Amino acid sequence: MLTISVLTIGDEICIGQIINTNAAWIANECTKIGCNVTIHSTIGDDISIILREVERLITTSDVVLITGGLGPTHDDLTKDALCEYFNDTLVHHQPTFDYLSSIYARRGQTVSERNATQALLPSKATILNNLRGTAPGMWFEQNGKIVVSMPGVPREMKGIMENHVLPALSELTAKTKGVQVFKTLLTTGITEANLADLIGEPNTFMNDATLAFLPSYQGVRLRIGVLRAEKQDALAELTRIESHIRSRANNFIFGENEQTLTSVVAGLLLEKKCTVSVAESCTGGMLGAALTELAGSSAYFEGGVQVYSYSAKEKILGVRHSTLLEFGAVSQETVEEMANKVREKFGTDYGISISGIAGPEGGLPDKPVGTVWIGLADRYSVHSQKFVFSNDRTINRERSVSTALEMLYRALLL
Amino acid sequence: MLTISVLTIGDEICIGQIINTNAAWIANECTKIGCNVTIHSTIGDDISIILREVERLITTSDVVLITGGLGPTHDDLTKDALCEYFNDTLVHHQPTFDYLSSIYARRGQTVSERNATQALLPSKATILNNLRGTAPGMWFEQNGKIVVSMPGVPREMKGIMENHVLPALSELTAKTKGVQVFKTLLTTGITEANLADLIGEPNTFMNDATLAFLPSYQGVRLRIGVLRAEKQDALAELTRIESHIRSRANNFIFGENEQTLTSVVAGLLLEKKCTVSVAESCTGGMLGAALTELAGSSAYFEGGVQVYSYSAKEKILGVRHSTLLEFGAVSQETVEEMANKVREKFGTDYGISISGIAGPEGGLPDKPVGTVWIGLADRYSVHSQKFVFSNDRTINRERSVSTALEMLYRALLL
Repeated sequence: MLTISVLTIGDEICIGQIINTNAAWIANECTKIGCNVTIHSTIGDDISIILREVERLITTSDVVLITGGLGPTHDDLTKDALCEYFNDTLVHHQPTFDYLSSIYARRGQTVSERNATQALLPSKATILNNLRGTAPGMWFEQNGKIVVSMPGVPREMKGIMENHVLPALSELTAKTKGVQVFKTLLTTGITEANLADLIGEPNTFMNDATLAFLPSYQGVRLRIGVLRAEKQDALAELTRIESHIRSRANNFIFGENEQTLTSVVAGLLLEKKCTVSVAESCTGGMLGAALTELAGSSAYFEGGVQVYSYSAKEKILGVRHSTLLEFGAVSQETVEEMANKVREKFGTDYGISISGIAGPEGGLPDKPVGTVWIGLADRYSVHSQKFVFSNDRTINRERSVSTALEMLYRALLL
Repeated sequence: MLTISVLTIGDEICIGQIINTNAAWIANECTKIGCNVTIHSTIGDDISIILREVERLITTSDVVLITGGLGPTHDDLTKDALCEYFNDTLVHHQPTFDYLSSIYARRGQTVSERNATQALLPSKATILNNLRGTAPGMWFEQNGKIVVSMPGVPREMKGIMENHVLPALSELTAKTKGVQVFKTLLTTGITEANLADLIGEPNTFMNDATLAFLPSYQGVRLRIGVLRAEKQDALAELTRIESHIRSRANNFIFGENEQTLTSVVAGLLLEKKCTVSVAESCTGGMLGAALTELAGSSAYFEGGVQVYSYSAKEKILGVRHSTLLEFGAVSQETVEEMANKVREKFGTDYGISISGIAGPEGGLPDKPVGTVWIGLADRYSVHSQKFVFSNDRTINRERSVSTALEMLYRALLL
């Protein structure tokens, strides 16, 4: 396998002004074509630091993919640093200059002196044209190692990766021994620790594969990775491990790879031609927001009510005054009425309701902060469940939404 | 200045399955308190690689802040690696065990054997309790260098940073020479380029300070940074630069630093004792979700309706059939009726409505994808505005919410 380091250059990333989405995108694409990404490194715009870091990464990996520092202003130093590293000089590159001229001609302009510097490029590099911007990429090779420099603007970097770098790396990695394949299984309704216990110790059912537990508020994702000399062997082992995991935990697995709970629920709603409406209290609209996240959601989402106050629950939705008075807003009785009422009002197949104490204030001895009731009504019946999540307002709201989606998911499976 | 390295441990980050938001958040917070973040590094879950990387980073910086690899499953290796690095052993930590017991007791459970391992902690580390999860942080010191290990779950990491690490680093950095101070001014309703033109070339009003433009869907943030030997000199220069910027662009500045449009609007609603309700179409509940994000929102948010379909707009909210028929759901007439009706229904001071074509489908020649009407009603009148955002569904929905909040903000200022 080809080993890859991802080097991001830029003060704005270093001091945390900008989240480094480039590194994740590059790593994901390289992993998909079977390369092994081992390091991401981010450093500031400083020639001596760039030189030191390229030297370090080139000794620990086959390929160093660099983004950033290729603009036309004084703080863009990557090109100079690479010239120094490869003992190279900048020369005029006519195809790049012609391309720059054509870009500015379209705007009725000529190439300014500052912008013309973009056509001064290292003589030893293969120039990778950039159809989405003015700074081309550069591909250096030395002693069997590869260093590629690309602009930091995500769209430009992606264009150069897709048009030049990924095809070339695919070819190279096909010649190396070893292919790594991955599959992610998405679970819901079980904690990381319980899932680990259910599946059993990895070394009892796999040898050299990797199994990663990735928890989030939407559930724990399980990533299986297998490295083999031949791709079909890797895939066969992956399937074997997946079968073992499914034999133990299939009831908690709702999807694979790029899917989400929302996309799986949306797929089931479409497939079964079912519609849904929501009555939200502590989530204030987050469940509706999740259900309308994907294009085409009007096929299954009719609408809902955000009944945040007591009075809204009563006047807008028609929850009985006596129910609220006797049992409170966060109760089985109230969420079940909410689910029934919203389903009737909107004429949908399902009605989902959420009422809880998100916190940090509002907890009671018998209903601490984090107590959330979720109700689900269909044409024939209504049921509800009580949860006690956490002390944190944001977590309580996010978990309410994913738990409500999970309840709908399970109802749709029946 | 204290120099800081941020080390992220986890295969899922290395292979690009997850974007590394932790590193940016940590770097941003450390920069704000005057530290100098010089390196971010991401590596996989491998003990020998972790050992090598901690050794490298500890020699190039004063503090190494580590996230990831602290869970209770076999692929979490950070604690073992740090024990080995510091030649330490794991011992039972009673306060952590007691805390774990209390968490599980709340759910009616006892601490499982697997989860009890979270209370096995290195004897030489200062334990940093984690109020948002089960894995505490660990603070090691050796030869004047500091290594801190925290969980990878962002909210847990942030809690430990805010409660323990940032206060301690603030104290340490106050003792070092050279202070960098930052201030961020938050703008809304103006593009990055227009804001830059309005303020003027940075070198006409500042010398060695930095001015960064940080655009987002919530508006452009302007970050001023000043480095001086003495803190009061840095602060004086910061104030001078801020005054210049405010003299040019004050009308677009709605807040500072950690504030958000939501928090500023919430503050104004509380101050003026005003209430609000929402009628959402393409945003499906996102505006209500934003308005209930902060604790205490029940003082100003009554509720709303998610009227996603035509029929819901008519039947639930009472928009006239003739209005929808004649002008369509995405029109001035419809959003103004929506804003009026929701305000009346909920009896609030303000009613806000959003109706738009989020895309990617549903565009019309005269109403392309990205067309959004936003209405705002008060007791006396209603007004509305049309926007054409972008081709992207997610961006259109996010910008609809922030623009609606901006309209409410401007109304509250009157």
